[in-house]
Amino acid sequence: MTKRLQRAMLYGIFAVVLLSILPLALGVETGDPTGTSDYYSSPAAKPINGKTEIGKVTQLDLAKQMSHNMYSIDFMWTLFAGFLVMFMQTGFALVEAGFCRWKNAHHVFLMNFLVYPVAGFAFFVLGFALMMGGSNLFPPLNHAFGIGGWNLFGLRGMFLGGAAYDVGVVMLFLFQLVFMDTAATIVTGAMAERWKFSAFIIFSLFMGGIIYPIVGAWAWGGGWLSQLGFVGLGAGYKDFAGSGVVHMVGGFAALVGAWYLGPRIGKYDATGKPKTFKPHHLGYVIAGTFILAFGWFGFNAGSSLAATDLRIGIVAVNTMLASFTGALATVFLAKWKSGTWDGGWGANGMLAGLVAITAPSAYVNPISACVIGFIAGILVYYAVWFFDWIVKIDDPVGAISVHGMCGLLGVLSVGIFSDGTYQGVKGVLYDVTMTGGLGQFVSQVIGALAIIIWVSGSALFFHWLSDKLVGIRISEQEERTGLDVTVHGIAAYNDDD
Amino acid sequence: MTKRLQRAMLYGIFAVVLLSILPLALGVETGDPTGTSDYYSSPAAKPINGKTEIGKVTQLDLAKQMSHNMYSIDFMWTLFAGFLVMFMQTGFALVEAGFCRWKNAHHVFLMNFLVYPVAGFAFFVLGFALMMGGSNLFPPLNHAFGIGGWNLFGLRGMFLGGAAYDVGVVMLFLFQLVFMDTAATIVTGAMAERWKFSAFIIFSLFMGGIIYPIVGAWAWGGGWLSQLGFVGLGAGYKDFAGSGVVHMVGGFAALVGAWYLGPRIGKYDATGKPKTFKPHHLGYVIAGTFILAFGWFGFNAGSSLAATDLRIGIVAVNTMLASFTGALATVFLAKWKSGTWDGGWGANGMLAGLVAITAPSAYVNPISACVIGFIAGILVYYAVWFFDWIVKIDDPVGAISVHGMCGLLGVLSVGIFSDGTYQGVKGVLYDVTMTGGLGQFVSQVIGALAIIIWVSGSALFFHWLSDKLVGIRISEQEERTGLDVTVHGIAAYNDDD
Amino acid sequence: MTKRLQRAMLYGIFAVVLLSILPLALGVETGDPTGTSDYYSSPAAKPINGKTEIGKVTQLDLAKQMSHNMYSIDFMWTLFAGFLVMFMQTGFALVEAGFCRWKNAHHVFLMNFLVYPVAGFAFFVLGFALMMGGSNLFPPLNHAFGIGGWNLFGLRGMFLGGAAYDVGVVMLFLFQLVFMDTAATIVTGAMAERWKFSAFIIFSLFMGGIIYPIVGAWAWGGGWLSQLGFVGLGAGYKDFAGSGVVHMVGGFAALVGAWYLGPRIGKYDATGKPKTFKPHHLGYVIAGTFILAFGWFGFNAGSSLAATDLRIGIVAVNTMLASFTGALATVFLAKWKSGTWDGGWGANGMLAGLVAITAPSAYVNPISACVIGFIAGILVYYAVWFFDWIVKIDDPVGAISVHGMCGLLGVLSVGIFSDGTYQGVKGVLYDVTMTGGLGQFVSQVIGALAIIIWVSGSALFFHWLSDKLVGIRISEQEERTGLDVTVHGIAAYNDDD
Repeated sequence: MTKRLQRAMLYGIFAVVLLSILPLALGVETGDPTGTSDYYSSPAAKPINGKTEIGKVTQLDLAKQMSHNMYSIDFMWTLFAGFLVMFMQTGFALVEAGFCRWKNAHHVFLMNFLVYPVAGFAFFVLGFALMMGGSNLFPPLNHAFGIGGWNLFGLRGMFLGGAAYDVGVVMLFLFQLVFMDTAATIVTGAMAERWKFSAFIIFSLFMGGIIYPIVGAWAWGGGWLSQLGFVGLGAGYKDFAGSGVVHMVGGFAALVGAWYLGPRIGKYDATGKPKTFKPHHLGYVIAGTFILAFGWFGFNAGSSLAATDLRIGIVAVNTMLASFTGALATVFLAKWKSGTWDGGWGANGMLAGLVAITAPSAYVNPISACVIGFIAGILVYYAVWFFDWIVKIDDPVGAISVHGMCGLLGVLSVGIFSDGTYQGVKGVLYDVTMTGGLGQFVSQVIGALAIIIWVSGSALFFHWLSDKLVGIRISEQEERTGLDVTVHGIAAYNDDD
Repeated sequence: MTKRLQRAMLYGIFAVVLLSILPLALGVETGDPTGTSDYYSSPAAKPINGKTEIGKVTQLDLAKQMSHNMYSIDFMWTLFAGFLVMFMQTGFALVEAGFCRWKNAHHVFLMNFLVYPVAGFAFFVLGFALMMGGSNLFPPLNHAFGIGGWNLFGLRGMFLGGAAYDVGVVMLFLFQLVFMDTAATIVTGAMAERWKFSAFIIFSLFMGGIIYPIVGAWAWGGGWLSQLGFVGLGAGYKDFAGSGVVHMVGGFAALVGAWYLGPRIGKYDATGKPKTFKPHHLGYVIAGTFILAFGWFGFNAGSSLAATDLRIGIVAVNTMLASFTGALATVFLAKWKSGTWDGGWGANGMLAGLVAITAPSAYVNPISACVIGFIAGILVYYAVWFFDWIVKIDDPVGAISVHGMCGLLGVLSVGIFSDGTYQGVKGVLYDVTMTGGLGQFVSQVIGALAIIIWVSGSALFFHWLSDKLVGIRISEQEERTGLDVTVHGIAAYNDDD
Repeated sequence: MTKRLQRAMLYGIFAVVLLSILPLALGVETGDPTGTSDYYSSPAAKPINGKTEIGKVTQLDLAKQMSHNMYSIDFMWTLFAGFLVMFMQTGFALVEAGFCRWKNAHHVFLMNFLVYPVAGFAFFVLGFALMMGGSNLFPPLNHAFGIGGWNLFGLRGMFLGGAAYDVGVVMLFLFQLVFMDTAATIVTGAMAERWKFSAFIIFSLFMGGIIYPIVGAWAWGGGWLSQLGFVGLGAGYKDFAGSGVVHMVGGFAALVGAWYLGPRIGKYDATGKPKTFKPHHLGYVIAGTFILAFGWFGFNAGSSLAATDLRIGIVAVNTMLASFTGALATVFLAKWKSGTWDGGWGANGMLAGLVAITAPSAYVNPISACVIGFIAGILVYYAVWFFDWIVKIDDPVGAISVHGMCGLLGVLSVGIFSDGTYQGVKGVLYDVTMTGGLGQFVSQVIGALAIIIWVSGSALFFHWLSDKLVGIRISEQEERTGLDVTVHGIAAYNDDD
């Protein structure tokens, strides 16, 4: 039997099977292809408060089920948004690896990969309890723990055991964890290409277990920053999705880390002039930035924790618009300054806009979002220059400028641009009283200072601690050769046969 | 103290901390790990029409809250779908860059990146108002603007100011913007590797601000195409998710652009025989196509703008099935013609099926979806050949064939395969009256012609305008060297130490 | 006119247009930027059971609409989750291609790409009907088909025709299809770099049309495995999201396939010592693993098929925690054994944890999830060693260990760790009666054995059949040269000018 004959038989068999099955499929009956039949308006499959017969459903059943459904709607929103935020880890990995050199690509990818389980596990053990274990802000937490207010940190919910084994609490845990991980992964960018791997692991444990959760407790866990409204300072510190709680925390931990660690070999010449290392893969940088911009919709709009809050669309659009003006500002500025259309600046400009709009995304109108993004795009360009040339802190990916500086801009923007249409939060452009916009601005300044002080201090301590324990920097030989083959045993890319 | 001892101590401390914390977590209390307790069926945390006590909830409260919840459900659906469509930008970037040459990778990535903020910002300033500012089709728009019908374009909603600062309007803006951006990014593929960057920016502004919005207004903004049903032509022009409004617009703008720009150097030899440039990265092409197929679920199923419309699952499955038959048709055809199993053809075949099913996705049954995708898979293969060999328009990624030609197929398919189970739209296979299937087919032909005429004309004008203003094509030297190092200052990939 | 003048004019025009449009936008009217106005609590745009006037809505209308809304909520949940699972194909493509050699990258990408339409189309024609055509477990199926229970396989729903053309049935089809495709794509990893393409296509047709659907029918289609509870064995075979139905099916089909196919040339030297081929792209492996971990939230939490089931958050968090402990266990074990921090092990460790938690994700508490993931992380390390060194089956990506072995661990874990808080499923740690935990464990063992026997047998038969029909292995020359240029006509990466 020749090959050709065999193949012909094969196609023949498939054809016969297909044709003989088709008529079976096309019976006279039909389903409900529109979903408008009685079946899809009956509780036959989806009982209403446990009742499957529509005639027996009472008004109380309706009320209870409606309440349950609202939890469903808001759980779904928060979970999908949390999944998107988790996906941002992919974006961070690509952006950071892309900006670094090929000889350290495995190293950068693996730090971005492992920071998720390492810091995440510390958050599970301790961080979540410190952050949310005393909160009275999220009702299911309050229901489960029954306490809250004015605390410095909480203590309940470790290992998600006991009262924390609750659908609402665990769901919130997921959303909080992925935010924490965003903060933790920012550090890996600024300290890349010279950070010792064991020191990275130790620091990440403290980042997820202590540094981040304390700020989280203050701002989102019912702690003192969130209560500043009660002493007459606007609505208290407001940070809708974490320009401060997430990005400043990551950015300032990165700042002290990169300073403590020192610059990469060859970054500064004898005269102190910085060298620009070429990004090894701009495709990663662009694709990663798109992934981040995609996940950021979950980051910001998801922070309502509720789709029953219809403001979500405005939050998402503000996020998008600030990313536009951020990218455009930086790209045109870089073109004007250097004469080239630069993808790396495009990426960092978009990220700058996104970071800056994170805190005010729910409180401002779309035109203000454009302004905030635009300022961030200008700011990030000069901040990178400032840290590179003046402060001389070596930050391979620009994380300090993008997350630290633009995060600060975002926190302050709440006190400037908030228009009062959401939760009554106003900025100085709309109200100059102390219980209104001016007080709001003061609250934001207090929040920013508290974050800077706590994070710089505690991060420095834990960097120092990791240095004492295992050493914080790789050897000169490892750095020159590249971390991939020396520390990780294999290059990221191999073309062996 | 030796290193080893230090490390042992470290592990010891962690172990002790972990073990000492664990018992704290496991209290006697327990939360509600199933969500079936009274708490999750009470309005304690989710007030029903503002009431937190279930006993006080009236029937009117229930009705109002139910209505609000339906908005929530549909907002959530539309927003997540819109996020997925935005993510398609990543897919376009990867597919287009992958099909081009390595020396232009930075260039292609950056065009795909910047088209999002550039065209998006123009849509914010002007496009959305032209497209939707006179619509009476989306109720919140109608509520906000109070006008509509038979217009050529609208005028309200610029900068999302005034009456457009509304949760429903802004939410819709996001969804429309990402669709527009899909159309705009199609052009960058066909004109890649020789388009001047400033001309690209100018054209993209007009694409987002004028070219696309006018078609959008006609078809989706309550304009004349959508009203053809009132003069007895079926249900009027129907384009569920934009085979015409998005893909034909992108495809025909790409067609006149690639024609105006001329072929890349070396594409045609002295005898007019086309050369095939090898794709520089088929991994990008495949991964990008998967990302596009993923985002397309949002593109098509999201176009219901409502999850309370249960047809959504059928829309999604039709989308998937057409992508299957499109990919299979093209791959087997290419294997039969050239003897190799080709990933590039697989990608373009799947995209062809996806483009063609976009307009009819809600109106046809799954078997018809397979047929439509199959035809598209054949069509795209011969269309690429036709433009390459006969028309001699150089399209590095096949965008004209995939989006323009298969978009046209999709628009016509509505008038052929629609089975009448959704919104009463029928095709000629099911009804041959002028108020039914035949009229529907005529409506679709009118729509397709209108799009071709408007887009070809206006796009040609704006390409010409950009040529007059800044020049449309890079210099021969830049093209030969590659745009990355000449225009963008740096290659996409660098292996410097 | 000089260039500079031209450009200045251009900027001027844009500025004038922008400034003249802005005032138009800022009218005195305002929309509803919070969504709390009456409009968004009225059925004006979203009729309640067809009624648009709130005063005319009766209690029966409310009940019917509430039921409809619950379908909407659950459809939306299931669809988005299904989209995420489809996106996992991208992750599989990247991980598998990354672990293989550059000369076979096109080949691996294309197998991962085409398995989606090929196996998917077979599932559409036959597989779904075999799997779900006799099910009484999913109410809309029962409604559409009206039959069920104790079957070996079903027969209704081929081509989604007749009664299967129903919003609920088609929606479920999408979710089941993407799960099937996950199983099918596992095989491409273990058999990569030497599998003949036509044999791959034939086998994938049988995988999607017969092998997977039979297991699906037994476990999820109302078949005998799901009914074991009625003979007193706990709650019957329970596999929440498919450690057995999906991952063991893929893993054991891969096992017999890789065994039948034999090792790659050069894998074993004369003494039988295995060689480790270097992964050609660890960036793919890491990014792909993140994509898989992202999609896995849809995989596991989506398997509730309902967001009205509030357990979803706990399912998602269990999934995440097991991925943490899996990755950490493998990375630290590999570091301890080989002295390097290895990204490939990190990826496979995380995947091991994810596979193992898939079956028990809904039934266990978070601490148990950590334990399961940890065990999986250890298991996968030694399983890879075992297959490589002892059994000598060549599996380029470790798919047999990750999916087959950790899938088995997951299936058994249900019978060990389930704590009884969800659907009353208990493991031996919580209950040692035959109607409780012990019986559950026996059910799980029976399920695992049934899957191993059916899959190993049927997959071996279909591998043999494809070998007889078209030959299963490429030629030695093709393998040595690399499949990309020999079978697919072009390398994955090309740097031609």
